[in-house]
Amino acid sequence: MTQVIDFYFDFISPFSYLAQLKLPEIARRHGRELTYRPIDIPEAKIAAGNYGPSNREVLPKIKVMTADLERWAKRYGVPLVFPANFDCAHWNCATLFAHQQGKAEAYVTRAFHRIWGLGIDPRGHDELRACATDCGLDPDAMISFVESPTGQNEYRKSRAQAIQRGVFGAPMMFVDEQVFWGNDRVDFLDDYLANK
Amino acid sequence: MTQVIDFYFDFISPFSYLAQLKLPEIARRHGRELTYRPIDIPEAKIAAGNYGPSNREVLPKIKVMTADLERWAKRYGVPLVFPANFDCAHWNCATLFAHQQGKAEAYVTRAFHRIWGLGIDPRGHDELRACATDCGLDPDAMISFVESPTGQNEYRKSRAQAIQRGVFGAPMMFVDEQVFWGNDRVDFLDDYLANK
Repeated sequence: MTQVIDFYFDFISPFSYLAQLKLPEIARRHGRELTYRPIDIPEAKIAAGNYGPSNREVLPKIKVMTADLERWAKRYGVPLVFPANFDCAHWNCATLFAHQQGKAEAYVTRAFHRIWGLGIDPRGHDELRACATDCGLDPDAMISFVESPTGQNEYRKSRAQAIQRGVFGAPMMFVDEQVFWGNDRVDFLDDYLANK
Repeated sequence: MTQVIDFYFDFISPFSYLAQLKLPEIARRHGRELTYRPIDIPEAKIAAGNYGPSNREVLPKIKVMTADLERWAKRYGVPLVFPANFDCAHWNCATLFAHQQGKAEAYVTRAFHRIWGLGIDPRGHDELRACATDCGLDPDAMISFVESPTGQNEYRKSRAQAIQRGVFGAPMMFVDEQVFWGNDRVDFLDDYLANK
């Protein structure tokens, strides 16, 4: 039995932001380690054979999902603001740098707060550098990592391994042989761990 | 303020089956009338601009969704068996006949139980006739209705009105100005009605 909860997420995903608000506490309560595995949702969807449009492209759907996100934010008591842009590739990649430094949880929590709590523009490196500093990480070293072939390769490996494992979207949580998809399934995950 | 909860569903949808297990009690508790509005999910998706594959066509997804459905069935304490076939158009249409006879709730509950509780083959009319009899409905009159231009036209009208209203899938519940999508959102619906 592995002691790990693999958390597949993408910073473009508001439901991943919501899930991350709950997962660290759940993992700690059940003595599990939470491993942060960044993916690229559009790429994972295509790889799974899902050639459909993104939610943002289906107008009646995005309206309902926006109201739904507002209900979740209210339930969790957190702010939720759509970011000024959805280009989060460097933020995803930076997770692997933070992981190497033993600060993945702090980084992911703070990055999600900036992107979906404050609605910042994730492009450029100012916000990313500020986030690194918040976590006690070296901003220069982080930016060097995300711009390096090594960093890009690590991120590519993370995405490829996710696809090999059957990840088709985010947030998805893998634990033992169980898979849970969606912020709205963290309670099923909690139940599963409680009844092991 | 309308006193109605419009419930958009399709008998091919297991999450609609799950939602129907909860909605009648929620509606009664809050003094609302539940109105059953059958739709055709693939048609509604296309109309909303969602040209993607069905869940059944995305292999990694259907595996995760099947496990998820089993968790819901266990939580609700009900059987869940995939039906032998997904052609439910006549069952959807028959809802409008049952509604005319004041027996929509009984019919929808029993029909879902046959299709997703027992996993019957919905094709042909034997099961549909038996379901009509269970509800105290005239099976001959029901079959005549679903085969008639009037019945087909009523069903077409139900689907068209749903699309006009922004329905892009099922289950969806509309109440006042609020929209709730998914069996996993009946608790948000319940909260909303409790706090009106």
